[in-house]
Amino acid sequence: MAEKLAWKEKAQLKRDQLNNKIKHEWKLDDTTIRRLKDDKKNLIKNIDSLCPSLENQITHSTIIKLRERLDNEELTCHEITVAFCHRAALIHQVVNCLSEIMFSEALKVADYHDSHRPATLPPLYGIPISLKDQCNIDGVDTSLGYLCRTFKPKTKNEESLIVRFLRDLGAIIFVKTTVPSSMMATDTESNTFGYTYNSVNLGFSSGGSSGGEGSLIGAHGSLLGLGTDIGGSIRIPSSYQGLFGLKPTFGRLPYLKVDNSFEGRETIPSVIGPLAKDLSDLRYFMNCIINTCKPWTEDVKCIPYHFDYTTNALHNNYVVGIWYGDGVVDLPPSDIRALKTCEDLVNNTKGMKTVKWEPSSELSRELFDVANEADVADSGNEIRGEFKLSGEPLLDILKPMVLDDGRPPYTVNEWWDLTKRVYNAQQSLRNYFLSFPESERPDVIISPTTLMPFRPGDMLKTTLRYILLFNVLNFPSLSVPVGSVNCQIDGPMDVSSALNTEDKMIKTYWNDLVESGDIEGFPIGLQIVSPTFDDNEVCKFASWLFGKI
Amino acid sequence: MAEKLAWKEKAQLKRDQLNNKIKHEWKLDDTTIRRLKDDKKNLIKNIDSLCPSLENQITHSTIIKLRERLDNEELTCHEITVAFCHRAALIHQVVNCLSEIMFSEALKVADYHDSHRPATLPPLYGIPISLKDQCNIDGVDTSLGYLCRTFKPKTKNEESLIVRFLRDLGAIIFVKTTVPSSMMATDTESNTFGYTYNSVNLGFSSGGSSGGEGSLIGAHGSLLGLGTDIGGSIRIPSSYQGLFGLKPTFGRLPYLKVDNSFEGRETIPSVIGPLAKDLSDLRYFMNCIINTCKPWTEDVKCIPYHFDYTTNALHNNYVVGIWYGDGVVDLPPSDIRALKTCEDLVNNTKGMKTVKWEPSSELSRELFDVANEADVADSGNEIRGEFKLSGEPLLDILKPMVLDDGRPPYTVNEWWDLTKRVYNAQQSLRNYFLSFPESERPDVIISPTTLMPFRPGDMLKTTLRYILLFNVLNFPSLSVPVGSVNCQIDGPMDVSSALNTEDKMIKTYWNDLVESGDIEGFPIGLQIVSPTFDDNEVCKFASWLFGKI
Repeated sequence: MAEKLAWKEKAQLKRDQLNNKIKHEWKLDDTTIRRLKDDKKNLIKNIDSLCPSLENQITHSTIIKLRERLDNEELTCHEITVAFCHRAALIHQVVNCLSEIMFSEALKVADYHDSHRPATLPPLYGIPISLKDQCNIDGVDTSLGYLCRTFKPKTKNEESLIVRFLRDLGAIIFVKTTVPSSMMATDTESNTFGYTYNSVNLGFSSGGSSGGEGSLIGAHGSLLGLGTDIGGSIRIPSSYQGLFGLKPTFGRLPYLKVDNSFEGRETIPSVIGPLAKDLSDLRYFMNCIINTCKPWTEDVKCIPYHFDYTTNALHNNYVVGIWYGDGVVDLPPSDIRALKTCEDLVNNTKGMKTVKWEPSSELSRELFDVANEADVADSGNEIRGEFKLSGEPLLDILKPMVLDDGRPPYTVNEWWDLTKRVYNAQQSLRNYFLSFPESERPDVIISPTTLMPFRPGDMLKTTLRYILLFNVLNFPSLSVPVGSVNCQIDGPMDVSSALNTEDKMIKTYWNDLVESGDIEGFPIGLQIVSPTFDDNEVCKFASWLFGKI
Repeated sequence: MAEKLAWKEKAQLKRDQLNNKIKHEWKLDDTTIRRLKDDKKNLIKNIDSLCPSLENQITHSTIIKLRERLDNEELTCHEITVAFCHRAALIHQVVNCLSEIMFSEALKVADYHDSHRPATLPPLYGIPISLKDQCNIDGVDTSLGYLCRTFKPKTKNEESLIVRFLRDLGAIIFVKTTVPSSMMATDTESNTFGYTYNSVNLGFSSGGSSGGEGSLIGAHGSLLGLGTDIGGSIRIPSSYQGLFGLKPTFGRLPYLKVDNSFEGRETIPSVIGPLAKDLSDLRYFMNCIINTCKPWTEDVKCIPYHFDYTTNALHNNYVVGIWYGDGVVDLPPSDIRALKTCEDLVNNTKGMKTVKWEPSSELSRELFDVANEADVADSGNEIRGEFKLSGEPLLDILKPMVLDDGRPPYTVNEWWDLTKRVYNAQQSLRNYFLSFPESERPDVIISPTTLMPFRPGDMLKTTLRYILLFNVLNFPSLSVPVGSVNCQIDGPMDVSSALNTEDKMIKTYWNDLVESGDIEGFPIGLQIVSPTFDDNEVCKFASWLFGKI
């Protein structure tokens, strides 16, 4: 039936079906919604006040602590699941972060778990996990933010391998979260589900493309969720909501049967990874999927790999690269301050030191350019086609992807040429790394990431210069929150000394955010990356760092 | 100067320069050449009769034994290098397998080695290694069989990483070997260097594209050389000359700065690997490059991996899949006999068993089709362009690659679709593997390979059905010789029961080869592959097998 509706009606029907899955007692009235929306920086506190204290205890806990309490029979799966379903429902009504609600299915699983409790609990037993709207679940749509893909529930056979792993580990899947149509944007909006706001500061974007995940987890509506990252889509929402988000090396976590844009595009591939409130939870999760499920046995794209979750000990003569900028776009004062904090912590520790990480601006530019060219290689063919299928209008945030300048899509020869450029750029960076004396080669690098948040509509006023290159390089990257912006300390930037038009735009936008005070208290995001392709090293170092901060 | 010549003159000049590097004493007169060419099946013996006995001792030895004799100072690097240079020169004058001769440079290195002998000799110290004409060497052309690429010597900075590794390990580079222009053929011919004959039976093709390597090593002109394989190019010449040839899993050996066709084509990638007379030598070589040189530190495409060379012990409950054919093209009686020999050896060993490996014909067809489609995705653009640059005429063996049917090259979207099909086919095969009970899942599979040789001009009368799929699957594959054809035992095939046109063609060709007696004594090739992506397992099993045969 839905197929025959005009796009607006069909989108409305999808939204109605979604919101009808929130039970009456969990619905907020318009006045409350308005009040919560207006109090931009206090969503967590405001949601807390609407929830019973046991639920707040649960949702403010960690996976590891909840597992202990489940082990000790201090909590039931039912209690935990209700707490997260309720909170996710409330958060959604303010920030608009959910695309699929599976509360009743989740509670059924929880109740089954409680009544069939095994002697030894599987590692994610009773833990609710949220999923970006790319993961396939039996009986549920996977929209990728496209209206044409709604009302086409996936079958059991189409279920994502990682979803099956989660079920096998005892996890409880309870929601899917919003994405920008196609996922090829760093903001989260679609004609079907609307706009997803930042849950840490409602005046800003949640980021994207895993924006629904970021916003949900940011307000404690989930402890851990799965996102994907082809150009920052895990790290940007993590950075914008003060979370830990890991873009793993390609082949660590299984992408098998996870729907995607540009399927078959293997140059600068999308990877799947976790966003979490707590770093130990994130490492615990990686350990479960990698060491317990051994994804390489089933997904041919996965590489045999062990993930060490038990130790934070770093080897002797540990070297940390600090990247103060690429010479193309300067860092805001908040990033410089956060980097200096980390640098001091490292240098004040015996057996550790920092080095300056400063690949040439030319190489940084090339790493950025190849990523951008890859994104528009098909001249928007695929995205245009998906929009056409439902008749929904193209979104502004996708216009950089759908150029409509009459340029034909790349030929396969042009694509191979671009792929060759990617390899050359990767290799140039490797040569830069090898140019350090062996004792000075960084084990990990601390890098800027998003630089600053943006208001709805301002996506193009920010830069991906510190994001895309790590997709091109296939370095594992962990997005980490390091303090928050203090407008007194982190004052305006000198626009008159801008290096170029882009730098000027960024500096001007920063000054606007500082002068308005909007950015006050906003989390500062950095990323920890490693030229060793070792996800485990990145996580271990982060645990060491956060043991110090 | 060469640039201004018409293509024929330029090609002649290149050949003259090549052949002038063979010193007068090593030149064969026309009568001898004619005699050796006519005695098709006895080249090794005939060359032996032209060489001093010390040289024959050396060239019929193995790397491992030569290393021992070098260690014990029973031989000098000079003696070894002269032996191989001399023999290679003689073989070349009959089969036409060399594209670059570096005898004087090689002898200089050998003499330097001898006069600067270190206390501990590096692992390949004093061992001459031959290289397919894709590897870049300072001061030497890399032609890929294209005339337009001759007279453009590479610089030090362009040298292939693996060449640098070989130098570091003490190896002596003495020749580069012929390839078909573009390397996208299984025969070896170019306008510049002409046709390369099989050194085991001069009535047949050397195979391709590493045909020069195969033919040179086949007649003991080198103990080990490097080839590449995107669709059989290591395995086919190995099979045709009774050698061991390893197509490694992608990322084991470094391809960095090795020139190639279709650079940037990462779907079904070309890999580099060794061809060798002796299996232990091949394993020793892999161990040197992987464990000693650690290619992943320098080539970003390489994956950290340990190669175990010291043991042949197989684990308990070892399972070997035997593949008696894909249901599309039947195996000749020689292959069936060789497979049965292996099957019996396994089943007569305690703790080992065989299972039938029989993926569906439909899947076999798809694995074959995607490889073929990938090869012509650019409609011959690149190859046509290279030929055009020098004005040399297109070769018949390349006409399947350069369709000239007016079809445009794939768009990037079509290419991504094909890449998706590749992944789906890989995954279907993985699902077939997983459909075995765990105790029955093969550790390795013994598979047919080339089925039969072909005469010059008959390339298209053979099939790649048992070759291409292992490129698509990225399985490591070791080409192994298992006995030889006996026309009495391996009689004609029943053409009337042919499964299809292709099968009929193959059966008819086989009968022709048997009835003419030409194939009598020709090596039977099989391949050992592994669905575990473990090159080491494949080699270990082969060592076990050849300990029994």
